[in-house]
Amino acid sequence: MTDFKSLEKDIDYYFNDKQLLLQALTHKSHKIGPDNERLEFLGDAVLDLVVGELLFYEFPQSTEGNLSKMRAGVVSEKGFMKLAQSINLGHYLYISQSEEQNQGRNKPSILSNAFEALMGAVYLESGLEDVRRIVKILLEKVYPNRDFQSLSLDYKTSVQELSQAQFFEIPTYELVSESGPDHCKEFEMILLIRGKQYARARGKSKKDAQQKCAQIAYEKLKKD
Amino acid sequence: MTDFKSLEKDIDYYFNDKQLLLQALTHKSHKIGPDNERLEFLGDAVLDLVVGELLFYEFPQSTEGNLSKMRAGVVSEKGFMKLAQSINLGHYLYISQSEEQNQGRNKPSILSNAFEALMGAVYLESGLEDVRRIVKILLEKVYPNRDFQSLSLDYKTSVQELSQAQFFEIPTYELVSESGPDHCKEFEMILLIRGKQYARARGKSKKDAQQKCAQIAYEKLKKD
Repeated sequence: MTDFKSLEKDIDYYFNDKQLLLQALTHKSHKIGPDNERLEFLGDAVLDLVVGELLFYEFPQSTEGNLSKMRAGVVSEKGFMKLAQSINLGHYLYISQSEEQNQGRNKPSILSNAFEALMGAVYLESGLEDVRRIVKILLEKVYPNRDFQSLSLDYKTSVQELSQAQFFEIPTYELVSESGPDHCKEFEMILLIRGKQYARARGKSKKDAQQKCAQIAYEKLKKD
Repeated sequence: MTDFKSLEKDIDYYFNDKQLLLQALTHKSHKIGPDNERLEFLGDAVLDLVVGELLFYEFPQSTEGNLSKMRAGVVSEKGFMKLAQSINLGHYLYISQSEEQNQGRNKPSILSNAFEALMGAVYLESGLEDVRRIVKILLEKVYPNRDFQSLSLDYKTSVQELSQAQFFEIPTYELVSESGPDHCKEFEMILLIRGKQYARARGKSKKDAQQKCAQIAYEKLKKD
């Protein structure tokens, strides 16, 4: 049996029931013993609540819409992968030989699901308070500067807020050109504030091009 | 101020902070005082966890996929509306005049959101244990016979399980006809088990027609 002490040390939680920990680390491809899918089901909801609650208290002025966007950024596959990587979770997983060869230990979906399962297992054994404590520690580590932008990854909303604060106006987006055949069109858009162009970008959809424009403009306005 | 005693009696929880209860009952159309949207954000996650956990313990043999389907049925707008109606929640809401005229007290989205906000408020004031207790009481009342079908509303999965148990075979679906112009097509499908037709139904999509077939076949097989 692998030594889990360093994992337990990293989350500062020591399982009484080592079988439960083992189950949380067992991917469904590993055909021996119960896998972590039911624990993942539980952990998913536990994390939604714990992360939502932390944001609820940390951003007392945020609207429900912005809280949802921030939570969606953190509790996404990409967000949980970051938390999983911060405790080197891939190293401890039980996965099949073929997943092993397929870079399974680094796959976002496998890492993210295992992180949910691990938190589900902590919840099952000792309740919400310990999950809250662990998640707080990991969020501090992975998102040292927590603001709307770094959490939500939503540049359109962020640049809108900056623009409103600096210019008392929101940005507008204009389509400059559309090219390519139907099945792989490309869109080029610009972002304007008070008629002045702040960004130009191409994307596979208008939305995609807008997000890219927003990111460029966000970096510019942030410097001002 | 309305008298909330009968509502508090129905959920067997008495708020210390009556302002918090008031906020949970305030729809955003009512422009006086803080509305219930942030509480709804919290309550949504609390309910996901509490309902998920109850199912986790009640169905120890269910896969993650079936647990998710059952939870999705209960924590849906329709599911929460049923719970809200069971405590006559619409009666207590603060909504605008125009929502009032617009049957706002009976709208699924307003009722469902207010129910989430109410549970968010209980959680905020006194934690998970009280929400768990209340939700248990309401689920017993609204879903006295809890099984996969009544919770998930997923007839396709249910009929598949019945068919497998009775005939050792899963049902197949066949498209019989397609009619109507592109923007409002209609599909007619049949459901077969061992080549015998058990149902025929029309729908706006193949999936929709399949679910209707499944419901008809489910009722037939259930009688056998």
